[in-house]
Amino acid sequence: MNKIKAVFFDIDDTLYDSTLHAEMVRRNAIKAMIEAGLVISEEEGLEAVKEIVAEKGSNYEKHFDDLLQRFGYQSNPRIIAAGIVAYHTTKAAYLVPYPDTVPTLLELRDRGYKLGIITEGRSVKQWEKLIRLGLQHFFHAVVISEDIGQGKIGPEIFRLAAERIDIKPNQAAMVGDRLDKDIVGAKAAGMKTIQLKKGRYKEHKPRNPQEEPDYVIGNLKDLLRILK
Amino acid sequence: MNKIKAVFFDIDDTLYDSTLHAEMVRRNAIKAMIEAGLVISEEEGLEAVKEIVAEKGSNYEKHFDDLLQRFGYQSNPRIIAAGIVAYHTTKAAYLVPYPDTVPTLLELRDRGYKLGIITEGRSVKQWEKLIRLGLQHFFHAVVISEDIGQGKIGPEIFRLAAERIDIKPNQAAMVGDRLDKDIVGAKAAGMKTIQLKKGRYKEHKPRNPQEEPDYVIGNLKDLLRILK
Repeated sequence: MNKIKAVFFDIDDTLYDSTLHAEMVRRNAIKAMIEAGLVISEEEGLEAVKEIVAEKGSNYEKHFDDLLQRFGYQSNPRIIAAGIVAYHTTKAAYLVPYPDTVPTLLELRDRGYKLGIITEGRSVKQWEKLIRLGLQHFFHAVVISEDIGQGKIGPEIFRLAAERIDIKPNQAAMVGDRLDKDIVGAKAAGMKTIQLKKGRYKEHKPRNPQEEPDYVIGNLKDLLRILK
Repeated sequence: MNKIKAVFFDIDDTLYDSTLHAEMVRRNAIKAMIEAGLVISEEEGLEAVKEIVAEKGSNYEKHFDDLLQRFGYQSNPRIIAAGIVAYHTTKAAYLVPYPDTVPTLLELRDRGYKLGIITEGRSVKQWEKLIRLGLQHFFHAVVISEDIGQGKIGPEIFRLAAERIDIKPNQAAMVGDRLDKDIVGAKAAGMKTIQLKKGRYKEHKPRNPQEEPDYVIGNLKDLLRILK
């Protein structure tokens, strides 16, 4: 890839293992709630949480309240608090970068690339992830959908991110795990696109030309080979 | 004290050092926000947080947003997230019992006393404290103001707590740090009252007979001497 001056990254399942993280925080929260008196099996609990997240979204604040309700419990602060404690403890344990994340970012900076984040979600939560990952100082621009009122479906957020570091979209590459968001949007904006096969979407295949990435990689460090 | 069958405890500044905890989480949150780009001094920040808490209460969810606003900043998710991460990390570090809390509770149980909690606050937050302190299994009753719609000013919450473990109020002792809440209310309900001189209220003196405790102790373990 010639004339690429900047590389943008998604956060979840791109800089860290968000799929594992989500599974572990849910599993440990359910275990803790069972220990605190919720009489269900771990599998029932996980299934229910999955359904609640699918229904209400991952930024919903009352997952555990809904869970109790679903199993016929009245609001029970003790059980909910047990889930919250396990959630926070486990979150801290699993919000760590992939082993090659930091070395790859450092090498890209050494080579003179500008680095950026383009991510969907609530701003404070996405920054919290960067901080816990220890990556808060690595990027020249961090663009989050909540801040700008634009998701990743269209090209706007990608164009804006390029503007922020004073380059044209065709001087940038976008790295992400989701064909339907990272690849489609960045491609529409004119960026080079790189699918990282990690996390729950890693077996997804392009369903149309818009979803076709320029490159497919299995690990972030493969970027160092592509970006020569 | 004869015929005492149960001992009730407040949580904050009674089972753990809530004053130190609050100071440390605030100080570390301010430090982290300064590291993330907030240009103020630590002392200015602490002073402002103190004012915001005094104004909005400790269960207000937007302390850091207000802080930024106070210093003329627009909403800044990165700085707020830095404060939140430091807050959670520090919270985990300082939510530990006083050195004599667990030994004293165990000895009281060994002697056949029923133990209970009577505390003001949001139910989930108070349970979260008990769980982080590792005390969630010690008590025969946990009564929290939010659950019952009653604070500690009047005798009702104390009467109800006694009922929960099937004793009369005059068969119980209440241990707490605040004369105006723990002592006044428990005394009005007919309990024996014990002021624990810990935390930010430790130099408070009774302003009237209603605030006069039956006993004053400097450490929880002194209970073992009083309750013979």
